[in-house]
Amino acid sequence: MTIKAGIVGYGNLGKGVQKAIAQNPDFELVAVFTRRQPEQLASGDGVRFEHISAAEQYKGKIDVMILCGGSATDLPEQTPAIAKMFNTVDSFDTHAKIPEFFESVDAAAKQGGNLSVISTGWDPGLFSLNRLLAESILPQGTGYTFWGKGVSQGHSDAIRRVPGVKAGVQYTVPVEAAIERIRSGETPDFTTREKHLRVCYVVAEEGADQEEIRKAIVTMPNYFADYDTEVHFITEEQLKEEHQGMPHGGFVIRSGETGAGSKQIIEFGLKLDSNPEFTASVLVAYARAAYRLSKEGQSGAKTVFDIPYGLLSPKSPEELRRDLL
Amino acid sequence: MTIKAGIVGYGNLGKGVQKAIAQNPDFELVAVFTRRQPEQLASGDGVRFEHISAAEQYKGKIDVMILCGGSATDLPEQTPAIAKMFNTVDSFDTHAKIPEFFESVDAAAKQGGNLSVISTGWDPGLFSLNRLLAESILPQGTGYTFWGKGVSQGHSDAIRRVPGVKAGVQYTVPVEAAIERIRSGETPDFTTREKHLRVCYVVAEEGADQEEIRKAIVTMPNYFADYDTEVHFITEEQLKEEHQGMPHGGFVIRSGETGAGSKQIIEFGLKLDSNPEFTASVLVAYARAAYRLSKEGQSGAKTVFDIPYGLLSPKSPEELRRDLL
Repeated sequence: MTIKAGIVGYGNLGKGVQKAIAQNPDFELVAVFTRRQPEQLASGDGVRFEHISAAEQYKGKIDVMILCGGSATDLPEQTPAIAKMFNTVDSFDTHAKIPEFFESVDAAAKQGGNLSVISTGWDPGLFSLNRLLAESILPQGTGYTFWGKGVSQGHSDAIRRVPGVKAGVQYTVPVEAAIERIRSGETPDFTTREKHLRVCYVVAEEGADQEEIRKAIVTMPNYFADYDTEVHFITEEQLKEEHQGMPHGGFVIRSGETGAGSKQIIEFGLKLDSNPEFTASVLVAYARAAYRLSKEGQSGAKTVFDIPYGLLSPKSPEELRRDLL
Repeated sequence: MTIKAGIVGYGNLGKGVQKAIAQNPDFELVAVFTRRQPEQLASGDGVRFEHISAAEQYKGKIDVMILCGGSATDLPEQTPAIAKMFNTVDSFDTHAKIPEFFESVDAAAKQGGNLSVISTGWDPGLFSLNRLLAESILPQGTGYTFWGKGVSQGHSDAIRRVPGVKAGVQYTVPVEAAIERIRSGETPDFTTREKHLRVCYVVAEEGADQEEIRKAIVTMPNYFADYDTEVHFITEEQLKEEHQGMPHGGFVIRSGETGAGSKQIIEFGLKLDSNPEFTASVLVAYARAAYRLSKEGQSGAKTVFDIPYGLLSPKSPEELRRDLL
């Protein structure tokens, strides 16, 4: 008996979920739902595409829907709508709106008798879990989160809005020296500038003034002004060849003290070649948990904080105790 | 309303639990139970000591017993006996015997209507959780565990049994170059020798042949023969001044692939000044979870795999979603 999954949204994340499902033999992909005309997407690899309006016809045929839309406008509408019909998993990441999103999904999921895991992935998700774990074990201590090296979509968009910029990409880079200070037992108060560096690769329009572009970027409030920012001008070919990947990662570190001043450091880190494929793999593991919790009779919205790790694995509790404990 | 805790066993771990409870204002230490004469232990810091045979008189007055005995002989007897009367947490770490220990504690705890978290700490415990998480998210991949730099009690004992050795301590040291290979995306098959180094500090008896001692150590089967082992001779004073701490730590790393070959690396690491104090801090966080699960009406044996992180924190689910997700 496989877990029958549907994918809603077929961008980078949805494609990543399709690949992740292929790595998990206890899953079966039933259909991909999209707002586009499904005929345009019909592919050679046997995937069924459906218009999102057809989702309702799959009630009883899909155990869990993996929602791959964006947090700005897609998920606030889609998750509650789909949660009335199916168990769901999503990666909603607009931090300030998580409490209200939780309430709205919780009500919808309970109405439908379904279970919804919201805001999973790696941050929110695995990083959140590690912040919680470390603070629970070391209540006397200081926690830090560093992101990167990785592409920031928001900052890349900001570069591309600068006059004279044809294309560009921005990498958030953690300052290694700052991480080393924490690893060596210090608990510094860092300024924004001391934690992350911003590195931009920019393709300028022909004839544009590169120095003007550089100034416009490094002085841009909110995005770059508070950071040390490097701007490198490259050709369109270089951008295509060297900057098409979507790497990311980062570190959650807590430095605490126990007893009479024993230093204790807990660190969790990710180094990802593909941010969307990794997020997709996390979504699939939590889809397994959502399905199982629903089978146990639970319903409503859950976060990663509510879900024991044992439910993420296809192995039985006996196997896990024997092989992994 | 505080969580009323008892400690069973007052060695390094029990003393660590006492300190950890002092860092967690939602806990209250009711009494320490010991096989020694409690009068010998009466201290100035207001702790009540009781003989272990008095535990039964505390039924209803203690919410959770934190068991701090050893895995070889103490816990296989103590945990089932105490679990009939109280919720418990322990750090049973004899890996091969975990399945039978689980069964025995599960039966006792269910009989008493109590909840017992077995085999927590950092390995088994936090490291186990990270092995499970990483393998669930990256099913195509290779996992590694490295220990150290830290004192190995078993190996230190082995040194001290060598003729001519007066005292000694052994550090297990992970081979940094091996970890770097994994971090850079390789998935090598390591020999035992390639993963860990063993570093011994030995105080020789007066007149003993140091070269004989060195040979006896480095060729000792099971303990040292399969490793590169360094033996350093030091004075008794040096041993006291430089090697009284109980540092430990290590890394759990998984290197996996998603999609068409994207490398994804998940790493969890600990760097601990005091192994027993850190283990104690983990026990207290899981004691909080044991108490809460018992309050919910659950009983029987559980492992870290069965317990959501949210139960480890004194904060409410709303606070956790708002502040840590």
